[in-house]
Amino acid sequence: MKKLNIGLFGFGTVGRGLFDVIGRIGSDEVSIRRICVRNKRKDRGVRACFTDNPDDIFSDPDINVIVELIDEADASFEYVCRALRHGLPVVSGNKKMIAAHLPELIALQEETGAALLYDASACGSIPVIRNLEEYYDNDLLTSVKGILNGSTNYILWRMFQDGISYAEALRQAQELGFAESNPSLDVDGWDSLFKLIIITVHAFGIYVRPEDVFRFGISSLNDQDVRFAREKGRRIKLVGHVEKLPDSSLIMSVMPQLLSPNKYIYSVDEEFNGVVIKGLFYGKQFMFGRGAGGYPTGSSVLSDISALKYDYHYQYKKIHAEEHPEYTLDTKFRIYYRYSRPEHLAILPFSEILEQYTSTTDNYVVGLVSLADLHAHQKELEEAGVFVAAYPRD
Amino acid sequence: MKKLNIGLFGFGTVGRGLFDVIGRIGSDEVSIRRICVRNKRKDRGVRACFTDNPDDIFSDPDINVIVELIDEADASFEYVCRALRHGLPVVSGNKKMIAAHLPELIALQEETGAALLYDASACGSIPVIRNLEEYYDNDLLTSVKGILNGSTNYILWRMFQDGISYAEALRQAQELGFAESNPSLDVDGWDSLFKLIIITVHAFGIYVRPEDVFRFGISSLNDQDVRFAREKGRRIKLVGHVEKLPDSSLIMSVMPQLLSPNKYIYSVDEEFNGVVIKGLFYGKQFMFGRGAGGYPTGSSVLSDISALKYDYHYQYKKIHAEEHPEYTLDTKFRIYYRYSRPEHLAILPFSEILEQYTSTTDNYVVGLVSLADLHAHQKELEEAGVFVAAYPRD
Repeated sequence: MKKLNIGLFGFGTVGRGLFDVIGRIGSDEVSIRRICVRNKRKDRGVRACFTDNPDDIFSDPDINVIVELIDEADASFEYVCRALRHGLPVVSGNKKMIAAHLPELIALQEETGAALLYDASACGSIPVIRNLEEYYDNDLLTSVKGILNGSTNYILWRMFQDGISYAEALRQAQELGFAESNPSLDVDGWDSLFKLIIITVHAFGIYVRPEDVFRFGISSLNDQDVRFAREKGRRIKLVGHVEKLPDSSLIMSVMPQLLSPNKYIYSVDEEFNGVVIKGLFYGKQFMFGRGAGGYPTGSSVLSDISALKYDYHYQYKKIHAEEHPEYTLDTKFRIYYRYSRPEHLAILPFSEILEQYTSTTDNYVVGLVSLADLHAHQKELEEAGVFVAAYPRD
Repeated sequence: MKKLNIGLFGFGTVGRGLFDVIGRIGSDEVSIRRICVRNKRKDRGVRACFTDNPDDIFSDPDINVIVELIDEADASFEYVCRALRHGLPVVSGNKKMIAAHLPELIALQEETGAALLYDASACGSIPVIRNLEEYYDNDLLTSVKGILNGSTNYILWRMFQDGISYAEALRQAQELGFAESNPSLDVDGWDSLFKLIIITVHAFGIYVRPEDVFRFGISSLNDQDVRFAREKGRRIKLVGHVEKLPDSSLIMSVMPQLLSPNKYIYSVDEEFNGVVIKGLFYGKQFMFGRGAGGYPTGSSVLSDISALKYDYHYQYKKIHAEEHPEYTLDTKFRIYYRYSRPEHLAILPFSEILEQYTSTTDNYVVGLVSLADLHAHQKELEEAGVFVAAYPRD
């Protein structure tokens, strides 16, 4: 078993969490040798070897693992590629970068033989990628559905629990360090979407570009929506969802859902994440754990680092399978659609309207609409400030 | 990737489940070539090559995987050893055999280089062994606690849900095929104990003999106990528990627990299993899935079989670690102890009695007692027909 000397990029919430976790377990098999940050002079109150020059990491012959935990996707991609080309294994937590570049990163791993692990990128402390890759690795898998973003879940939980406004709940999530530095990544569903793209590769063996998936966030959620959900005995959660239909086509979405209490993820509160993996024969599996915060995510990064001690790498078995499901937007969703101005109803071509409510302030319909139409009108929906949530019958 | 030709021992609920699952997915990478059963003439309504002679399996040069799903632990151990000595990888679901012989089986795997996988033995469809082995593989793990037996959970759920008697609930579990052929294995806690022994090896790297662990089942549970739990807003579940204490000693137990609603496993109903993995930094992880029945367990066996395609084997990293926690019975439990005859109170040397209730039919105390004393008096407790449950403060 080899000793791992880490070259770390980034010292934000997760980087700091990893640093503390490694310090606390006091292992002599893993140590952080050098940390590359933007400003090496900033006082971080820790004893470590900081640099602002990536070359200091790549030219250090003792460093045999790169851990990349920075925010910027472009720099992240550059460092990861550079490391893999050096033959250095990499652990990354940057879901945006991975979701954008996964096909190239898979090719680069195969070309160089160096491993890239990123379980921490997908659901904080839940080992969802590793399980999809290693355990749910046969044709039995039918869907993966989950609460993939801790900070929006925290916001929604506070809104439902304490009746506070969206703005106040967001502020609290940011104070607790759950939210990304750019809140749009969380609240507009981007973070969940990137995770869903990565999950889909490991669950079903196909890569779908983020821009080809319907994504809708929670930033337009208002009191009327919360009231509607409460009246129906439901809760609103931001859900990422990929499902193989019986004809082997594959649908994906990231959007709020009105969940009834009989769903496992109904009870996933605070900043937790929860993932339901459904299979033809085993029924539903539910995995649940902390989805945000430096220590849980740092622990998850450390699990990936530990796996490198044994030369673990993803085999992308399903990518290499002979048959793949085909991604489609050709399916109908039953949705709750709340709008303020009457002309906003026309944004979506509903194939059927099942309920309609109008008032002097807010209006809503419950109706059927195709996923393709949701996707085609995503930008108009966001600009109109309406709220859209899947509203399944059960 | 190689084609797997299975020699299958046993065609009970799980064997049949595996047969159906493999038939349904129609993979050309996995097939069942021969099935060894006690009575090869019995009509099972399926097209397969049955034999009653184990030699027919071991002498078939095309068979390259042994799957062992029989009830009898002695025969199971014989076939598994024979297969490993032949250099054939084995998948087994026999927790009793594995729990009894794990040290020899680990040694035999290392000697022969052939793999033995048994994730299906531990929690039906939940991949708990694989995750403990591969993901929670560092010093951060502090405890594993769970509902490990589907049929007792089904029985307890029916008793609490519908107010039916223990005997009636047991009968229904047996009708549904959830119970082992010998109900004592389930209801007296043996099945949970065997799984806990296996989990402990993969979680903490030490093997503890089943007879060294305090085990208490649910067969003496009566109306008074159910009433007590209800009055306190709790539910009774049969819980297997292993925990590393801050001084690095390790405690284990299998016994009923009075669980409050703030515990994840409080809500694990029907025949489901649920496992909470707790770590120093990531907090609690919860995994949940079907713990009994032919299809879920058959799917889990198939996941192990699929792993053999890639020559996966457990590395028993924690067994090979330099330091191990030390197993101890030296800890105190707060328990609920219900007895009918006054002299039964003296069986256990309580260090403190916190509550006492007497009536013309049933009596109980809530008190503190050492795990060592529970273990020392296990047989008397069982013979006296009393009921014992852990009753933690929160």
